[in-house]
Amino acid sequence: MTARGHSGSGEDNLIARYFRPLATDAGALGLIDDVALLAATGQNLVVTTDAVVEGVHFLPDDPPDTIARKALRVNLSDIAAKGAVPAGFVLTLALRDAGEAWLAPFAKAIGEDAEAFGCPLLGGDTVSTPGPLMISITAFGYVPVGKMVHRAGAKAGDRVVVTGSIGDSALGLRILRGDIPRESLDAPSREQLVQRYRVPQPRNAIALAVREHANAAMDVSDGLAGDLAKLCAASGVSATIDIPAIPLSEPARTMLAAAQVNLENIVAGGDDYEVLCTVPESRWDAFSAAATEANTLVTSIGRVVAGQATPRFINADGNPITLKRLSYSHF
Amino acid sequence: MTARGHSGSGEDNLIARYFRPLATDAGALGLIDDVALLAATGQNLVVTTDAVVEGVHFLPDDPPDTIARKALRVNLSDIAAKGAVPAGFVLTLALRDAGEAWLAPFAKAIGEDAEAFGCPLLGGDTVSTPGPLMISITAFGYVPVGKMVHRAGAKAGDRVVVTGSIGDSALGLRILRGDIPRESLDAPSREQLVQRYRVPQPRNAIALAVREHANAAMDVSDGLAGDLAKLCAASGVSATIDIPAIPLSEPARTMLAAAQVNLENIVAGGDDYEVLCTVPESRWDAFSAAATEANTLVTSIGRVVAGQATPRFINADGNPITLKRLSYSHF
Repeated sequence: MTARGHSGSGEDNLIARYFRPLATDAGALGLIDDVALLAATGQNLVVTTDAVVEGVHFLPDDPPDTIARKALRVNLSDIAAKGAVPAGFVLTLALRDAGEAWLAPFAKAIGEDAEAFGCPLLGGDTVSTPGPLMISITAFGYVPVGKMVHRAGAKAGDRVVVTGSIGDSALGLRILRGDIPRESLDAPSREQLVQRYRVPQPRNAIALAVREHANAAMDVSDGLAGDLAKLCAASGVSATIDIPAIPLSEPARTMLAAAQVNLENIVAGGDDYEVLCTVPESRWDAFSAAATEANTLVTSIGRVVAGQATPRFINADGNPITLKRLSYSHF
Repeated sequence: MTARGHSGSGEDNLIARYFRPLATDAGALGLIDDVALLAATGQNLVVTTDAVVEGVHFLPDDPPDTIARKALRVNLSDIAAKGAVPAGFVLTLALRDAGEAWLAPFAKAIGEDAEAFGCPLLGGDTVSTPGPLMISITAFGYVPVGKMVHRAGAKAGDRVVVTGSIGDSALGLRILRGDIPRESLDAPSREQLVQRYRVPQPRNAIALAVREHANAAMDVSDGLAGDLAKLCAASGVSATIDIPAIPLSEPARTMLAAAQVNLENIVAGGDDYEVLCTVPESRWDAFSAAATEANTLVTSIGRVVAGQATPRFINADGNPITLKRLSYSHF
């Protein structure tokens, strides 16, 4: 943590109080040097960086502990999707003020997640801003040389597979924004979806299975439809998705059946942080077994097909649907 | 560059147009994957992260090319001070809008510096913000195992050494803020100081000499006085600095002599991005020779001494001066 302020300044004090106790990994150098140090291991290092901005990626009244978890987990999700094992992260906090009421639960939660996912805090920077709160994390993962799973690599005939369930987070955001009437869902269902938006569940548990069995992978952060299109473009293939096979949570299924939301809200909503990968038929049984072993739901939702077309989403009646938009974009 | 928006979105388009041409290093994976990849080299990796915020670290009307260079160079400076060789960087841009008039010169300048310093763009994230522009960079440097130069390590008797000149950047900021009357300095001198504020000169040219000869090192980012205090605290020593020996530029010397600025403006001003290191007497000649070879001015400004006291700054009359503040702090 580069402390841009001298010993005894407010900035140094807050780093010391809240973040130094988390920086127990040797590579953090106790947060008293200019840099962190990642030791040579003979493995390659994947590097991912994702920022979250108040009012854009989280809501101003989201609890600080969920903001912390989300900021780290969106990066952990990238590491998982590449078949890598977390190595640590650096944290940049742009704060309007350094209030204890916000920082204490933020630091506690990020420390808990760092521990739970084996991804230690290695360093960072705190700066002041007159604008919205922003948290930028760069995270690292170890992967044996030549073993990273790329977006490119999907082959015609591969199964298209996703972890967990799709669309919950986007529906959670719609609930928080008041786009879905309260009476549409009971309180536990509302809470379940909101929680999925606030605290994603990165699938690091199946990173090794992805590395072992998948031809291509990425995490679903901008919406299944758009992210699948990217994976297919990088691989030079297309895909056909069986809409009824897309794994939905019970609340999402209920709302879709009642036409309270539409399919686009589900597959183009984003913030899922599930792994999307393609698995050759010959590896599907082994991949499924490894996922079960890792307590992670995986669902085969379609096939990679030859061609350059945008992936097609096929309805229960056998007809493709047309999506007006594929994913969320900031601009 | 994690493109959080689908192919064809504004965000993807701007990444493609401005940043993909810069991402020629193999580790960038063409900016089409979720991550960058740093290849195993058998060396350790130093990691530094520094963010700059509009209105805090640069001024709203600073030219985009100088903002780009400063954002990268403050990180390059940390890498140099640790005796490491740049390996690459990831860039997070929080933008209010994605105007071509700003992005084109920004990308051009950061590409030029990446090339000049051998520090390729490996990836990043672009997000929108309703607030001030913010650029967060995490940069990497290779250093042989066990060879990183720490803040800790200074020994009593070492020379205290700085590169370049001290205080110019802080005076440049005062000029931009209108704190120094225009008539105090001629136009070329004003421009020289302003340029030092806007575009630091990181001392990567002497990184290998620092690695070879220095017992301890850091970069001066918050002010010489405060940063020296940190280095001494990390090393468990104190220091005595000979104020007249501190290297000043001609404009700084003139203004100090005319009492238009005081010593505190110089040694506690920050944004110098010079290397501060301690060199044992036995290595001083070799270090000086290596610095000359690297066309980098180095000046011995004092000695490391035993003790825990805050470093003392000794005036020409032999008396220590008292600094009201040691460095700049954000909070």
